[in-house]
Amino acid sequence: MRDGARFAGLHLLIDLWGARYLDDVDAIESALLDAAREAHATVLNVHLHKFLTGGGVSGVVVLAESHISIHTWPELGFAAVDVFMCGDCDAFDAVPALERAFSPSRIHVDEQRRGLAP
Amino acid sequence: MRDGARFAGLHLLIDLWGARYLDDVDAIESALLDAAREAHATVLNVHLHKFLTGGGVSGVVVLAESHISIHTWPELGFAAVDVFMCGDCDAFDAVPALERAFSPSRIHVDEQRRGLAP
Repeated sequence: MRDGARFAGLHLLIDLWGARYLDDVDAIESALLDAAREAHATVLNVHLHKFLTGGGVSGVVVLAESHISIHTWPELGFAAVDVFMCGDCDAFDAVPALERAFSPSRIHVDEQRRGLAP
Repeated sequence: MRDGARFAGLHLLIDLWGARYLDDVDAIESALLDAAREAHATVLNVHLHKFLTGGGVSGVVVLAESHISIHTWPELGFAAVDVFMCGDCDAFDAVPALERAFSPSRIHVDEQRRGLAP
């Protein structure tokens, strides 16, 4: 429930521009785990992959409350992060850890309510 | 590029209602892998988790071209699927495999262009 609306999960689509550490797997893993912890989410699985071409990183943290994912384009200074959380967690609580870690010059957060009762 | 717009990746947020097999890990894994293959994506990692309470499943397939994720709520007949693909893959090519597998009575596909050049 949020604002009186009933839905299954809150999904934030977070686009970061002018961001740092986009080719740094360790920094990215720390950022995702910090984000999960600050949203009081339970981590079930972590998988990160660094691409040889371009240096981009893809990472997914599967949570008991859904997932956090990231895909980075270091050559653009761009990262697409998703924070999808259901249950008692608030996805917005994950955002400050991402801002601290990646220090983007611009951030755009789009809020999607998944599974709004039809 | 799509319709003359330059962006990093096409992200489909697919909400399925009245769907079947939402507590069946094997059926869900097959559906996600079929979806990836039909979109000509390269699978890097697969992780599925079945929850003991409620029977819901969370699954993520990390692709060379981004990811496919699913979270199911069997008690609602609802699943939230994300198909995020960059490069030469077309995320829309993954949708028919999902429809075949889950046979939803209602499907809503929301198209998000991630990383539109600012």
